Amino acid sequence: MKLIAISDDSHTIYELASKISSIHHLVDYIHIREKSKTVHEILSLLNLLAQQGVNKEKIVIHDRLDIALLTDNPNIHLPSHSLPVKQVRAAYPHLRIGRSVHSIDEAKQSEADGADYVLYGHCFETNCKEGKVPNGVHTIIDIKKELQIPIFAIGGITSERVHQLREAQANGIAIMSGIFASDNPYESALIFSKKCQENAHENKI
Amino acid sequence: MKLIAISDDSHTIYELASKISSIHHLVDYIHIREKSKTVHEILSLLNLLAQQGVNKEKIVIHDRLDIALLTDNPNIHLPSHSLPVKQVRAAYPHLRIGRSVHSIDEAKQSEADGADYVLYGHCFETNCKEGKVPNGVHTIIDIKKELQIPIFAIGGITSERVHQLREAQANGIAIMSGIFASDNPYESALIFSKKCQENAHENKI
Repeated sequence: MKLIAISDDSHTIYELASKISSIHHLVDYIHIREKSKTVHEILSLLNLLAQQGVNKEKIVIHDRLDIALLTDNPNIHLPSHSLPVKQVRAAYPHLRIGRSVHSIDEAKQSEADGADYVLYGHCFETNCKEGKVPNGVHTIIDIKKELQIPIFAIGGITSERVHQLREAQANGIAIMSGIFASDNPYESALIFSKKCQENAHENKI
Repeated sequence: MKLIAISDDSHTIYELASKISSIHHLVDYIHIREKSKTVHEILSLLNLLAQQGVNKEKIVIHDRLDIALLTDNPNIHLPSHSLPVKQVRAAYPHLRIGRSVHSIDEAKQSEADGADYVLYGHCFETNCKEGKVPNGVHTIIDIKKELQIPIFAIGGITSERVHQLREAQANGIAIMSGIFASDNPYESALIFSKKCQENAHENKI
C-alpha cells in the first residue's frame, strides 16, 4: 500500500520543512495542504523542500493549480470544492490529478473526468471531522469494484486500523495528524510505512 | 480616471451577481476578491456574470491565477503575498497583471517585474484596515514620477476625496465597501463614476 502524508496547516513553514525532511524517504507522497498560508509562504516552503533534496515527484499541491504550474510540480490534488477535474485534465494533460470523494458516485465521476486517483474519506472517526459520521470503510470495497484508478483512504487512520483498509483493498492510506501532530513524525511515519509494506497474508496471521 | 469596483467578500454569490450586474456598465473593472469562498463558488459566480452579459474583459481575478487561466479571463490581480509578478509574466505574457503595492520601492519593483498596473494603498483611514496608519496620498505623487504604468488608488476613498487623488495624478480609484456595502450599489457607483469623469480643471472650480 502507498503511504501519503498530508500536512495539517498547524505549523510554520520551517517546522513543516523539518518534519517533511525527516519523513520524505518513508512516504510515497506528501500533500502540501496549508489552507491558511499565503501563496508566498507556500512557495517559500517548496523552496526549502527543494533545498533539502525532497523529490518533487513526491510533492502534491493541494487545491492551488497555479502553484503547481509555476513551480513545475507534477501533482495536484483537487478537493471537491476546487477546480473541476475535467477542465484541469483537458488543459493540463501531463499532470497527475487527484480528487477527494465521499461516495461511490463521486468516485465514478472523478474517474470519468480523468482523475488519476481518488482520496476517499473519512473512514473512521477523527478530530479533524468532529461531529461528522464517518463514511466508513465498507464503501471502499464497493468503489474498488467499479474503479480502475487507485483509491486511497483518509480519516482517522491509526496503525492498528491499517489492516482493515488493506482488507478493503484500498491502494494506500493518507495520514495527517497521525504524522504531523506526532511528537516524533519520523517514528510515526516509520510505523505506518511498515504497516503499508506488510502483505495481506502476513497481516492476517 | 478609471473606476474599479472590488468585491468585499461579504455576500453570497447571488447577491454579488446582482450587485455587479447593476454596476458593471458604470465601472472599468470589477475585482473578484472573495477570499473566503471556495473555487467552486467563484466559478459559479463567474458563470452567473457571464450569463448576465458582464464583459469578461472587465473582470479581474484576485490572487487565483488558476481560475483566470481555466476560465480564460485576461486579468489577474496579485496581492503582495501572492505569486511573483515576474514568474507569472514570464509564463503567461498575454495576461494583464496587477500588483498591490504600499511604497514607491514596491511600485518600482512591480513595474520592473512586468506588472501592467499597480494598486496603491491604503490612502485614507478605512474600517477595512482598522488600526493601520494610512500610507497616504502624497506617495502617489512620488510614484507617478518614477512609473510609466498606471497607478490606481485604494483605501478609504469617498466621493469627496476623489479630487485629492486626481490632483495626485492617480490614474484611477478602487472602491470596495463604498460600492458593495452600499444600500444602493448602483447609485454609489454612479456618483463615483461621475467624479472620475470630471476633469481636473472642473474639479478645481
